[in-house]
Amino acid sequence: MDLQRAVALSALPGISRPHAAAAFKALTDYSGGSPVSLEDVVAVCRPDAEPAPVVDVAMAMAASLLESGRTRGITPVPIWSAAYPPLLRTIVDPPPVLWVRGDADALGARAVAVIGSRAATPYALEVARRLGRELAERGVTVVSGLARGADAAAHRGALEAGGTTVAVLGSGPDVIYPSEHMDLAVNIQKHGAVVSELGPGAPPLPEHFPLRNRLISGISLGVVVVEASDKSGSLITARCATEQGRDVMAVPGSVLSGRNRGSHSLLKDGAKVVETADDILEGLGWASGAPAEVKISGKSLIRDELLDRLTPGQAYDADEMSATVGLAVSQMLPRLTHWELRGWIERMPGGRYALAGRK
Amino acid sequence: MDLQRAVALSALPGISRPHAAAAFKALTDYSGGSPVSLEDVVAVCRPDAEPAPVVDVAMAMAASLLESGRTRGITPVPIWSAAYPPLLRTIVDPPPVLWVRGDADALGARAVAVIGSRAATPYALEVARRLGRELAERGVTVVSGLARGADAAAHRGALEAGGTTVAVLGSGPDVIYPSEHMDLAVNIQKHGAVVSELGPGAPPLPEHFPLRNRLISGISLGVVVVEASDKSGSLITARCATEQGRDVMAVPGSVLSGRNRGSHSLLKDGAKVVETADDILEGLGWASGAPAEVKISGKSLIRDELLDRLTPGQAYDADEMSATVGLAVSQMLPRLTHWELRGWIERMPGGRYALAGRK
Repeated sequence: MDLQRAVALSALPGISRPHAAAAFKALTDYSGGSPVSLEDVVAVCRPDAEPAPVVDVAMAMAASLLESGRTRGITPVPIWSAAYPPLLRTIVDPPPVLWVRGDADALGARAVAVIGSRAATPYALEVARRLGRELAERGVTVVSGLARGADAAAHRGALEAGGTTVAVLGSGPDVIYPSEHMDLAVNIQKHGAVVSELGPGAPPLPEHFPLRNRLISGISLGVVVVEASDKSGSLITARCATEQGRDVMAVPGSVLSGRNRGSHSLLKDGAKVVETADDILEGLGWASGAPAEVKISGKSLIRDELLDRLTPGQAYDADEMSATVGLAVSQMLPRLTHWELRGWIERMPGGRYALAGRK
Repeated sequence: MDLQRAVALSALPGISRPHAAAAFKALTDYSGGSPVSLEDVVAVCRPDAEPAPVVDVAMAMAASLLESGRTRGITPVPIWSAAYPPLLRTIVDPPPVLWVRGDADALGARAVAVIGSRAATPYALEVARRLGRELAERGVTVVSGLARGADAAAHRGALEAGGTTVAVLGSGPDVIYPSEHMDLAVNIQKHGAVVSELGPGAPPLPEHFPLRNRLISGISLGVVVVEASDKSGSLITARCATEQGRDVMAVPGSVLSGRNRGSHSLLKDGAKVVETADDILEGLGWASGAPAEVKISGKSLIRDELLDRLTPGQAYDADEMSATVGLAVSQMLPRLTHWELRGWIERMPGGRYALAGRK
């Protein structure tokens, strides 16, 4: 599939973005050489429709979006690109293309989302900023939504520490909302990325934000909620995280203000208590030397025999490793990504992999 | 065993109170007619000592304590008394006698401990007071330690609601510490009880308080911690509660002040999150119609077949019930107490029991 077709997948008339994304994921293996076609996706999502005219409209729209992207400095990152966030590939409905302003390579790093109330209290602002700073200091990319309040504080904290932060928008990456965050967005682009599944110029419509939330959690290995009332949009992101098998964590706060009712309900449901960034790293199994139990898309992986079968100091290409560990390449790659994100596998020049030095 | 001997159990030279209490519990069945003697307890706890002189000293001390109690209006409540807190009987080292000022019958009610920091923030004071008030409004007795800060606020909240509250002291019930809580103690005696395992005139020595804490949890079905730093004495009470099979709950608060590090560590270890009294009732299985899983001394009891075998509307004496449910009286009585505390069994006139009306 070429780039224009991938972009066109999100522009098929009468087919929602996540619907098309899920159909595309179900039909393809992202190897880049997959024979899936736009017509196949239309056949699944709109069985009543004649595919050709639907596809034609989408392809025209895609050409226009790609042209806009070129003009405005927005890079389309297709799902088969090495820069595409590896964890995002594992969700049910990964966008076929992410539109990126800034450093697309920032998306591949190990990442944690820090999100929370737009009408944040000074307490929440301070906590979000501190967590953003502490995570960045520990080399973790801080993902958030560029919203007022806790989101912006988390981005700012990461930037203060000289770290990497990623803003996932509910509009095109060139449409900054709220507009007072223009400077912040420019700063994020310099030290990370502003991304969206929506193409250049897309307006921040209310219906975009719940869908955007699945990407905030999808890019991240865990989601930390800082101050959420019982109606907060952060709870949508937390639910996405749970569905995607990611860790949900929450920062406790006052029980008197009503401002933390949502975060406390997450804690009651088993979310991990976060006081500091160390709690987050520990919750994700990054703090200790040994990999803790981790979950990807609901499947538990405790210490993987894949790691045990590799010889320390030796680099393998995909086929060699497949033979060594006794797994098909398609089964092995997601597990490699999983362990790479946790620092147990290192990617070497020439597409080779090795056990990371610290093992 | 008579009252003087029971008092003497806590005055055996060279034998700590909990040690004597545990030996007494292990040797007796509290039926009142048990043949356990002070000499038996001395033989277990000080096998090297000649029992007779040890017992003589303790009996003389007991006579003096009983006389002091009479003079100062302090009632000794022995473990076989109907007024003795039923849940306290189930711990490993229940005091053979509790010294009580106020209404000894207040001890038998269903009770929850609300405890916390002495140097409490305004936030903790407000939360403790509110929980005390809300629990009292729901007919729950509020147990605490009469300490400065959160303890006093919890007592005051219960009193404001016209409810019952019990203060467990680390001194004799006539030695009020801190002294500025004299008025509060008088008020508690009028609407509940001030109790201690220490007899009249005992001073508030530092070593008394950790031992006192096991009684705060032992009288209660659950312990709620409001604001505890990582060195707080409330954590000792929480550990006692866990050892006694009681529920541990904690109120979240700021992660920035360091004042909640202890309570948050309880939450990390699985303590229930408390925002309101309803969370407490729900946690204890009192909120819903059906009894939740509950634990007494580490044993789990889920819905008891004992309840199923009783005919609604019929009252049973102990022997009739024993025959009906097919359990020895000694096995049945703790379970009856268990369900009585949860409102599933009602005590009727003439020592008879029946399924409570609400079932």
